[in-house]
Amino acid sequence: MSPVQPSAIARLPRLCLAIALATVCAGALAADNATDGSAKPKTAKELLDASSPSDWRTPDPRDVLYMQVPAGRVVIELAPRFAPEHVANIRTLAHGHYWDGLSIYRSQDNFVVQFGDPEDDEAKRKSIGDAKAHLPAEFTRAASGLPFDRLPDSDGWAPEVGFSEGFPAARDPKSGQAWMAHCYGTLGAGRDVAADSSNGTELYVVDGQSPRTLDRNITVVGRVLKGMELLSVIPRGPDPMGFYEKPEERTPILSIALASDVPEAQRTPLQVLRTDTPLFAQLTEMRRNRKDEWYKVPAGHIDLCNVTIPVRKPPTP
Amino acid sequence: MSPVQPSAIARLPRLCLAIALATVCAGALAADNATDGSAKPKTAKELLDASSPSDWRTPDPRDVLYMQVPAGRVVIELAPRFAPEHVANIRTLAHGHYWDGLSIYRSQDNFVVQFGDPEDDEAKRKSIGDAKAHLPAEFTRAASGLPFDRLPDSDGWAPEVGFSEGFPAARDPKSGQAWMAHCYGTLGAGRDVAADSSNGTELYVVDGQSPRTLDRNITVVGRVLKGMELLSVIPRGPDPMGFYEKPEERTPILSIALASDVPEAQRTPLQVLRTDTPLFAQLTEMRRNRKDEWYKVPAGHIDLCNVTIPVRKPPTP
Repeated sequence: MSPVQPSAIARLPRLCLAIALATVCAGALAADNATDGSAKPKTAKELLDASSPSDWRTPDPRDVLYMQVPAGRVVIELAPRFAPEHVANIRTLAHGHYWDGLSIYRSQDNFVVQFGDPEDDEAKRKSIGDAKAHLPAEFTRAASGLPFDRLPDSDGWAPEVGFSEGFPAARDPKSGQAWMAHCYGTLGAGRDVAADSSNGTELYVVDGQSPRTLDRNITVVGRVLKGMELLSVIPRGPDPMGFYEKPEERTPILSIALASDVPEAQRTPLQVLRTDTPLFAQLTEMRRNRKDEWYKVPAGHIDLCNVTIPVRKPPTP
Repeated sequence: MSPVQPSAIARLPRLCLAIALATVCAGALAADNATDGSAKPKTAKELLDASSPSDWRTPDPRDVLYMQVPAGRVVIELAPRFAPEHVANIRTLAHGHYWDGLSIYRSQDNFVVQFGDPEDDEAKRKSIGDAKAHLPAEFTRAASGLPFDRLPDSDGWAPEVGFSEGFPAARDPKSGQAWMAHCYGTLGAGRDVAADSSNGTELYVVDGQSPRTLDRNITVVGRVLKGMELLSVIPRGPDPMGFYEKPEERTPILSIALASDVPEAQRTPLQVLRTDTPLFAQLTEMRRNRKDEWYKVPAGHIDLCNVTIPVRKPPTP
């Protein structure tokens, strides 16, 4: 699993020039801190390799979902601080094997994949078992008491943006509200016109240009940590919304389980770089102002949804 | 082909609530101009249906590339105003069937697909025929003389953003320069470390979160008008850069041809909404401040790369 997404375009594959974190080449996402006395600044990979264990966190298995599709496992982290009622319901649904045997029934290009029960006849829908049929809208929450590592960068959609314990988020000091932002990999709960019409059974994952217009309009429940490349290649359904016309076009969901319900040997060991660390701020600054040779003009800016949060397999002790 | 991408999440497929331009439902992307006396504001689809022929333009066939992959045809518009030398070379390469039989050899999740000749041994690379081996960097151009329909929205990456004859673009009044922006569907020319090391043979298409950090660092040559859903689902190559390890993993390019070199009967008839029209501004405003019932909080903002440029099959006279 790659901790940081490279973002330069080499003309040819093996030249590997100016590619951030390309492990086979001299890393080129460079920082200012050439502390070893050499002229060459450290690369992001070198910084991550030199990180300390406290720079990383291990998500609570009760907040982690494993979504098993035929191509493999997608690892999702739930965000109970932002959507406690939805997350509780999703835990109950996963514990009750609600999604096992259901499907990804929508794939709209440059937008989302959506999954759950495609049946629109309420009488024929799969039983939700012990889960609640109705939940409150959880579009925003009080900013007060919420950890928030603010980005210095401007944002057109919100007065303040940053990260809250690993989740891209936004904040409005005037209203005192905070909310999760719709970026690549964001997991949300589909709803009808009524704000409180989602119950967490129909979920979507963003796999296109960040649809921030959805922010504060729908309940965001988490974020994909690993396996986006399994969801993003799912064939698109027909225009305009990407709902498949034929059931056989859908992608089966083999299971969705809480990591805490999965035997430890079958879990995916995984650590996420803490977003409240100097290292995270340093890596973000390296992407904001690229100093590697390939880049001729540093952007001087980074968008919330362009920040990558490194994920790694825990190092063997 | 769908002119505007819906951007609400209905809980269930057939409810079709609050879905912009869902032709099977009452359109819900609503404008203020209920000029027909009814209480209901017009939808985007209704506005487009009522557009006049002068709201649309037909791209010059000399600026259009047809990229034929096994899944179908991708239609690309070249931007000679921004990258005249690259576009001239690309025309020569396409006319000489340069890409026919080559491949998409890189697919990096949430970033780009890249295509051309994967061979890194210069001696073994496919001949470029009459095309030039060296081109100048065309990262920016003079803003003077360039049509520019400015968005009122703020942008973190550039002082001014908007559209230039259908291409998302940015402008800096201080430097007097303008450039194309990296949005979903942007076509660019890969290069090595030297700014002038691209010749237009190795091209990439953005299929992830807009990598605006590449703006002003690489030559952008055009934009995909139709068929992104054929490129965006191409299986991702391995981390960190998505170059396939085995040749058989690559997606073959059957051909890339200039539309003007293709018999008229085999062309894809297509019109693009002009970005200098009041209709385009109105549609953009409808997405900036959603008034349909599904949305509870209008964003009051739209990002350059979230603006959709409608494309249609020309109406039969």
